[in-house]
Amino acid sequence: MLFYGDQTFLKHLNRGALLQLIRQTPRLSRAEIAKRTGLTKSTVGVLVSELMNEGWLSEGSLVANTTGRPSTPILLNDDQLFILGAELGGDGTNVLAITPSGRILDRRYRHLNHDGNALHTPETTIAELAGDIEAILTQQQQTGRRVVGLGLGVGGPIESGTDILTVVPPLGWREVPLRELFAPHLERLNIAHLPFLIANEADAGAMGEYLFGVKASEGPLLYLSVGIGVGGGIMIGNQLLGGRAGLAGEVGHMTLDVNGPPCPCGNHGCAEVLIGQQALASHLRLPHANIDELLSILHSGDPSARDAIQHSGRWLGVLIANLVNIFNPAAIVIGGPLAELGEALLAPAREEAARRALNRSFTCTSLTLCTSGRDAGALGAAGSVMHDAFSHASSTRLAGD
Amino acid sequence: MLFYGDQTFLKHLNRGALLQLIRQTPRLSRAEIAKRTGLTKSTVGVLVSELMNEGWLSEGSLVANTTGRPSTPILLNDDQLFILGAELGGDGTNVLAITPSGRILDRRYRHLNHDGNALHTPETTIAELAGDIEAILTQQQQTGRRVVGLGLGVGGPIESGTDILTVVPPLGWREVPLRELFAPHLERLNIAHLPFLIANEADAGAMGEYLFGVKASEGPLLYLSVGIGVGGGIMIGNQLLGGRAGLAGEVGHMTLDVNGPPCPCGNHGCAEVLIGQQALASHLRLPHANIDELLSILHSGDPSARDAIQHSGRWLGVLIANLVNIFNPAAIVIGGPLAELGEALLAPAREEAARRALNRSFTCTSLTLCTSGRDAGALGAAGSVMHDAFSHASSTRLAGD
Repeated sequence: MLFYGDQTFLKHLNRGALLQLIRQTPRLSRAEIAKRTGLTKSTVGVLVSELMNEGWLSEGSLVANTTGRPSTPILLNDDQLFILGAELGGDGTNVLAITPSGRILDRRYRHLNHDGNALHTPETTIAELAGDIEAILTQQQQTGRRVVGLGLGVGGPIESGTDILTVVPPLGWREVPLRELFAPHLERLNIAHLPFLIANEADAGAMGEYLFGVKASEGPLLYLSVGIGVGGGIMIGNQLLGGRAGLAGEVGHMTLDVNGPPCPCGNHGCAEVLIGQQALASHLRLPHANIDELLSILHSGDPSARDAIQHSGRWLGVLIANLVNIFNPAAIVIGGPLAELGEALLAPAREEAARRALNRSFTCTSLTLCTSGRDAGALGAAGSVMHDAFSHASSTRLAGD
Repeated sequence: MLFYGDQTFLKHLNRGALLQLIRQTPRLSRAEIAKRTGLTKSTVGVLVSELMNEGWLSEGSLVANTTGRPSTPILLNDDQLFILGAELGGDGTNVLAITPSGRILDRRYRHLNHDGNALHTPETTIAELAGDIEAILTQQQQTGRRVVGLGLGVGGPIESGTDILTVVPPLGWREVPLRELFAPHLERLNIAHLPFLIANEADAGAMGEYLFGVKASEGPLLYLSVGIGVGGGIMIGNQLLGGRAGLAGEVGHMTLDVNGPPCPCGNHGCAEVLIGQQALASHLRLPHANIDELLSILHSGDPSARDAIQHSGRWLGVLIANLVNIFNPAAIVIGGPLAELGEALLAPAREEAARRALNRSFTCTSLTLCTSGRDAGALGAAGSVMHDAFSHASSTRLAGD
């Protein structure tokens, strides 16, 4: 059970909720914020002042109202702070800097070629990533902005508590102690004292959509990352669903066909072997294609490519139907490299899901493609740092079981 | 987003968490409570006094300690208050009174015979149920106890906000305005001013397990009600997962076999047509058996009965594996009438789930049978009243979207 210590904690929660309100509805006045939140005007005044002093918020210029006095709109301040986000995926690495409203200030993408020749050890890959972080950090600091922290999204499961990256299949990594490997680099860059948050890239994607994308707050928000695997990030209220040991959201290993093809996890007929890169590649008899080769073939529009996409799309629809029935979500967002297939993938998925999901629940759900493309993981990881700075976890205590 | 108005709300939350702590760990002293919760001793003192005055808590007799002064254990007070719980299911109705610790003081079960002759309209059934409520209420009030409220669990989906019971298949009910139909009875019984909470019976079951049963608080708790249908109730933290429109938890309509038998929902191969009463009955070629006839045949132990149970159990295992991968739960509890099959059903389910679920996640999950049998729905509904009296929902405000 959660126990809430004191008034300080309450204020902390309200600060976070206030930032999210302004992210969703910019240009509210203090009076409008008070009306919408049920907080008193004086409480809103204090919270807004604090967040302005810290560089999160700013005032817009006075707006004339048809009735009453002119009012001052409150905005996210995009001029003082920035957050670093990085992604370490099977296909490449990405580093970016974002403002509090999620605007991307700068990015560096690096393709990881794992066709056999190049060898990417965790150490060398992280050193290269740290070099990109340094470049972007230095550049942004020179503009006078202040860095808030670093978020890292990774394409594999993270053990909660230890921050050990369990496995990244295409790179052949296993049990990588990420925090430990990053530590000397963060020291060198003088950011070791700042928050450094590590998240699964699908969890990061869900957080990114919650903060900057579809922003659904009236019900669960699910992010499905479709690529080599199929990952899931699930926001309920303003929290990511972690489960008992941080392993929740493994929707790609939902059994959709008990007699289906084998999955590396040991099961048969998992969603990811029916939907993901492997399914498409084997449909096209291209077992060794990397994601870019595969995408260029799939974009060709020839009949076998269309068939392969239809097939994956329909299974994606079964997965979506199941998730709709379980979560009654406000939004499902499809991201990951294969989301680049766009409507070709989404249309058959939508059709199949509509046939299978409970209609009352499906009609509640907005089903869309992620609009941030290959930046989604790094963007969401940066957003997670911001969210975490104003969330439950950092200031509550969990009583012993 | 949730905004938290003031200190009163904080206290309210802490009172609820404190009750649950004492439910899980009775006989803690005030000092031990302070240590476990991180609240100050004086705050704990105030909260405990208030809850004692209201009749929720009591002091046990002094306990000698090996070191220091003797201490006073704090207990749930089972002598002053009671909560009414009722269930309205396809097979029967149940009414009971429970104490704050979940002890059942009295119950009345009524079988609903829907073999064709008897006609159970919502009006007549609710009138009979109200008669049972009256009998139990009067009896308990004569002992000097004070009633807290009434919870009702129903075997069908409830539309959130309206409390309209959408459908109860075996009774042929549709769109029943439960709150409206109960109102005159509650007036007559002088309990119309008290909380009256209506919940889906699987949600009630999950709440019952959270409060009185497995009490998992370190991760999601899932309750699966297996009977005519397969319902699901999902506790995350101390909250039921409702979803956008209160329709979450429809795990029985997860597609497990895309080419499976048709389901009344319009889909094919839903979990409930592979696992529930219909699956067992059709396996045994007994399409018209009611649950008690079916259970007596299944308990016979003849090979075809064993086969049928194995078959349902394996599909139940696939469902469980999928839920383990999605939620990484601390506990899954199997309830509903078919849980009376016990290990005969659970063993094949456990085996199939172990083969299919991600091992790291499955080993986190306690998988057990519900121990409250046919009382589970009414017990959980009564518990929901208690939980709701100390929860978020009653005292927070939701900001506009």
